[in-house]
Amino acid sequence: MEAAVADGFDASTDLTATLRRAADTSALVVIAVPMPAVGSILEAVAEHAPEVALTDVVSIKAEVAAAVAAHGLSRRFVGGHPMAGTAESGWTAGTADLFRDAVWVVTVDDGTDPEVWRQVADLALDCGSVVVPAESREHDAAVARVSHLPHLLAEALALSGAGGGDLALGLAAGSFRDGTRVAATAPALVDAMCEGNAEALLVALDETLEVLRTAREQLADRSTSELTRAGHAARTRYEQRRRDPIVGTQPGDEGWIAAFREAGRRGGVWTR
Amino acid sequence: MEAAVADGFDASTDLTATLRRAADTSALVVIAVPMPAVGSILEAVAEHAPEVALTDVVSIKAEVAAAVAAHGLSRRFVGGHPMAGTAESGWTAGTADLFRDAVWVVTVDDGTDPEVWRQVADLALDCGSVVVPAESREHDAAVARVSHLPHLLAEALALSGAGGGDLALGLAAGSFRDGTRVAATAPALVDAMCEGNAEALLVALDETLEVLRTAREQLADRSTSELTRAGHAARTRYEQRRRDPIVGTQPGDEGWIAAFREAGRRGGVWTR
Repeated sequence: MEAAVADGFDASTDLTATLRRAADTSALVVIAVPMPAVGSILEAVAEHAPEVALTDVVSIKAEVAAAVAAHGLSRRFVGGHPMAGTAESGWTAGTADLFRDAVWVVTVDDGTDPEVWRQVADLALDCGSVVVPAESREHDAAVARVSHLPHLLAEALALSGAGGGDLALGLAAGSFRDGTRVAATAPALVDAMCEGNAEALLVALDETLEVLRTAREQLADRSTSELTRAGHAARTRYEQRRRDPIVGTQPGDEGWIAAFREAGRRGGVWTR
Repeated sequence: MEAAVADGFDASTDLTATLRRAADTSALVVIAVPMPAVGSILEAVAEHAPEVALTDVVSIKAEVAAAVAAHGLSRRFVGGHPMAGTAESGWTAGTADLFRDAVWVVTVDDGTDPEVWRQVADLALDCGSVVVPAESREHDAAVARVSHLPHLLAEALALSGAGGGDLALGLAAGSFRDGTRVAATAPALVDAMCEGNAEALLVALDETLEVLRTAREQLADRSTSELTRAGHAARTRYEQRRRDPIVGTQPGDEGWIAAFREAGRRGGVWTR
């Protein structure tokens, strides 16, 4: 907080005063704490600013939405997840460009308020991000695959390298460096992400364990070609993914929630 | 070949003439073909240039050394493995800086000729690489962990992402991009590396499957902290690895082979 104030930002650790000020000025409140701390923040919001427009930047969405509902705050809440970050933590790890061209998921759950949805999407667009609409549970299943599983595999790969001692670590080149990069993330942050999305992550991990077990049997027969061909095709599909702007439907139009979900599933993005 | 000649290089597809010229000029011959093609090259070397100093740049070393021995060429052979490359193939994928600051393993197997060892080490140093001495089997066990296993995990991760469809691929950020980068490598190249080092890779893969199975059980109990802490410590050890110059022993000194192997195990590097 001191570092933020020193940089000229209007920051405070007085939560009550900050929430009352937000309520008085009809501000958009952004909850930016790890999942385990979300409940206590929601309690304060429910007490001091229950009518405020509310979003968050937690990396899992169904559990946040459930906590928001438990505090009676769903009506003015729209979940958010900017898919950006570094392995660093703290105020100094932030940069003005951190969210530029990043994907920022804005949830379209049943009953979403279209005006709050626009406010949250505008915040993401103002940061230079690309807005993807997704239902909370579908978001969680997707990020289990592309964000949480990568962390578990990176940790396991780092362990394998260290198990080979200084010779193995000394021979490590780009494939190991890149494959273990996110193992440098603070363990508590990874735990919060993975444990909070355990149900979806177990599905993804079980699927991958099965893929690796099959690969293991084939490797014992001196063949990896089934895995390498399929993996190469998957990586190519990733590299060739497109982002098509959503057209023809505006937030609040009849059926907009179903239309936005379906557009997000096909890789669609919201633009102004 | 045409591209190399067009760039002003003295290149030829006439293997016999090239090997005879190498024998006449006491050149160092570098075998730079995938493992499945090594045998036919060695056959030609044994026929046309059996006394030439010989090295290779294949990513596995014990199998190459065995093939060299089978062709009676061990006396003047020292294995090499420059740990550099890109996901691209072909002449145009090469750059003068490709090997700069890369690790280049130069093998120290029983009976290694110290003069050929110096020639091969000098080639690596001339390319700007860092020379690590290692026995062939120890090299293979190490690269299974830090070079071949990363490829298998990258392929599996790419498959998991694609399994989530366009939504998951659209939400993929840095952790997925970096974790799947090497899945863009031509499958045949990955197959040649992994299948040629299957024995050592099976050991590394079985160890990692066990790590992931344990992590799966702990995740089902909503905890990933054992894996994330161990993985973070392993990545930190990798980031803090040091390269100490080998001092006090020269190639050819009594006991130099054992001394160089032990130095390599501790992260030591050869310098001029």
